[in-house]
Formats: sequence, structure tokens, C-alpha cells
Amino acid sequence: MRKGDIMNKCLVLLSGGLDSATCLAIAVDNGFKPYALSFDYGQRHKVELEKAKALAKRYNATHFIFPLSLNIIGGSALTDMSIDVPDVPLEKIGEGVPITYVPARNTIFLSIAAGFCEVNDIEHIFIGVNALDYSGYPDCRPEFIKAMEKAITLGTKYSDMGKSFKIHTPLIDLKKSEIIKLGISLGVDYSLTNSCYNPDESGNPCGKCDSCKLRLKGFKEAGFKDPLKYPEGIEL
Amino acid sequence: MRKGDIMNKCLVLLSGGLDSATCLAIAVDNGFKPYALSFDYGQRHKVELEKAKALAKRYNATHFIFPLSLNIIGGSALTDMSIDVPDVPLEKIGEGVPITYVPARNTIFLSIAAGFCEVNDIEHIFIGVNALDYSGYPDCRPEFIKAMEKAITLGTKYSDMGKSFKIHTPLIDLKKSEIIKLGISLGVDYSLTNSCYNPDESGNPCGKCDSCKLRLKGFKEAGFKDPLKYPEGIEL
Repeated sequence: MRKGDIMNKCLVLLSGGLDSATCLAIAVDNGFKPYALSFDYGQRHKVELEKAKALAKRYNATHFIFPLSLNIIGGSALTDMSIDVPDVPLEKIGEGVPITYVPARNTIFLSIAAGFCEVNDIEHIFIGVNALDYSGYPDCRPEFIKAMEKAITLGTKYSDMGKSFKIHTPLIDLKKSEIIKLGISLGVDYSLTNSCYNPDESGNPCGKCDSCKLRLKGFKEAGFKDPLKYPEGIEL
Repeated sequence: MRKGDIMNKCLVLLSGGLDSATCLAIAVDNGFKPYALSFDYGQRHKVELEKAKALAKRYNATHFIFPLSLNIIGGSALTDMSIDVPDVPLEKIGEGVPITYVPARNTIFLSIAAGFCEVNDIEHIFIGVNALDYSGYPDCRPEFIKAMEKAITLGTKYSDMGKSFKIHTPLIDLKKSEIIKLGISLGVDYSLTNSCYNPDESGNPCGKCDSCKLRLKGFKEAGFKDPLKYPEGIEL
């Protein structure tokens, strides 16, 4: 990623979470013309799609929302409503693959992104994966991203045209607090994001799931206050 | 793939076409307990899904049908009804990537297959791709399959469990006529398959699209008669 790739198009995987919002801001700051792709995948925390729409609008990104019945695959607390989202102690987060892991999710998301990119002549994909301060998801690791970059290049017309995909992971080595500091320096409005796996009916976060805990810890370490509204008793 | 992998589970990508039907028969012949995965992806030739159901039943395979709105991505005559399926001369088939190529289709299919496999504890995937006598699709080439095998292993829990995906492509080096001969030797009932991209309302093939042409040529070279009903004037 170089400043100077002015008006190169990019596709940002935009969940509506803190990481993907920061990723979108970074892409725009680097001179890319952004497209955004969100998935309506039967997620428990569907409020994130509303956040994604607001973010795409804020950054003037062409926004695709792709419906995806990952609940048919199941096997995750995020897509199978019969599996509860657990309250994991902060120190245990990252030990093993948690039940909120959605089988092959980023693989599926990046494959579909490749299809959109091919039709819209986009070579740059931004994804907000993070291998530090992360939840233990296998599809957030650098070696996976590298393998996927190769696979989607070989599996599309690009390989015949001398073009190739570049998957940008600007957050991969950052701590959550560093992501937040970077985002704030770029003017990201984090009230337009959701990180919670189990929000209430108004879309407010629970403060208890591993994603909320990582977010709150990040804001605290960064020295900022999270603009979202948490239940009483959750320490900000 | 070894005879002796008795009752190892496998997932067969089952479009309902000639190749995937043969692939399913090969997996069963090799002692695998078959699961089958088909996609309802807005394809013009939706009749293939009925064929897939009949094939899965015939082989006693647990069958998943996954809805996938590839028409949102577009860019292909198979998913965009405003793009006609062309009548390509046989000798021109395989020159360049044709308009019936669906952007990133096999990448997307294999990613979703990985999700199903992970939940059902399956390491073996069968896909009927074919790099000879093929339509020029980039996602049918051995180097793509190899890259994808690595990506889906790294992007799932398997990589943490010392397990890995094996993508079997038993047809990859076979001519269409060899696939048909092999299938017939295994008792495949090709009346239960559809290859046509543009079938009529009764589900009968057009005989003119590149897929019909390759199929008819294959049957002819194999010395068998295709059991499907073609329009009058199509040479069998």
C-alpha cells in the first residue's frame, strides 16, 4: 500500500465493527476509491449492518450487501441461535478457537469479495483482521491471508491477465488500543460501529462477550472513552 | 485417494452435471461415505438442482443445498439473464475465458464446502474440475486447486488440530470421453444429469451451448449415446 496509488479502487470488507471501520478509513487515507462489501449472514448481531451502511455513506463508498445463509452451516454461537454467546474471562480470550468462530467465514467472505472485485476491476482488498489481541480465529492469521491471496488470484481471470489480488491487512500487527488510536487520528466516528456479538434490541452492546471486552480494554488502554452505550455496571 | 479409506467421510460438490455425477460415483467406489453439496446460485440452468437431488438420493448421500445470490455479483451469462449464452463453435471452445465463466465460482463453492466440512468433521472434498476438454475457466486448474487446499486448511480449525483438507480432483486429467467411459463402468446413470447452460422449460438440453457441445463430443468419442433428449437436428 503506497500513498500515491491515487484513485485506485479497493474493496473493503465492512462488517460495521471497529476494525473494519478503521480499515475503511485507512484505505481512504491512502488515496483509494472505496467499495464496501458487507454480509447479511444470519448473524446474531445484525445491528452491525446498519452501522456498515452508515459508515459506507460517511466514506462515500459504493456498498454491496450480500445475503449469505451461514446459519445452514451452523457450528457457531454467532449463527446458531441455540448456542449461547459465552461470558469469557478476559485472560482466557485467545486460548483455543472459541465458539463464536464461524466456520470458514473469512475464507467465504474473501472468495465472494474476489467475485465482486473481478466484475468491478478491483485488485485491492482491505480486511480488518488482527492477529494480536484477537479472539483465536484461525482465519485471521497472516499465513491464511497469504494463501488466500494466491488462491483468489489463481481462481479468477486475473491470473490470465497478469493481474493479481493484493489483500491489505493494515491492522494485523496492531493491538486493539493502537487500532483505536490510529482510527481516532483519522477521524473515525466509533459511534457508527458495533463490536458486540449479543447486542440488546436497541443495538446497544452487552459489555460481556469477548468482543466487547476486547473493545473496552482497547479504549481504556488508548486513553479514550468508547462512545457506545453499555449497560450499567460495565466498567468503561 | 486410496481404496481402503473405508467409510471416511467426503463432501462431493454436486452440481448435477455429468462431471460431478461421475465424481460422486468415484468417491463411493473408493469407499467414502458421501455428503453432497449443491448451490442454488441463481443459475439459468436450475434444472441441474433436481438432477443433483436425484443423484444424491441414488448414492445415499446426505445432501445440502446452499442458496447463494451470485446474481448480485453478475458478470456471467449463467447468472445474469441479460447476457445471452453464446453458440460457440467447438474449435473455439477453450480459447480465453468465456462469458459463461462465473466470477470466482469454484473459490466460493470450495470455501463454503470448507465450512460444511469443518462442522461435519470431513477432510476430503471431491470436485469434478477438468483441465482438459474444458471451457477455459481459471478456477478449474490444478494450481488453483492446490492453492485453495492450502488456504482452506489454514483458514479453519483443522490447521490447529493437525488435520488438513484434501481436495480430490479425479477428473482433472481426463478427456470428456474418458470421464464418460469411467462413469459408465461405475454404473452412472447419465439420464440423471444435466450439462446444458440453457435448457428448455422441460429441462431438456439445447445442444448448442459450449457445455452441450463438449458433452455430445464426449459421448460420441466414448462410443455411447447420450440418454438426454436433444432438439431435432442436433447430431448425436
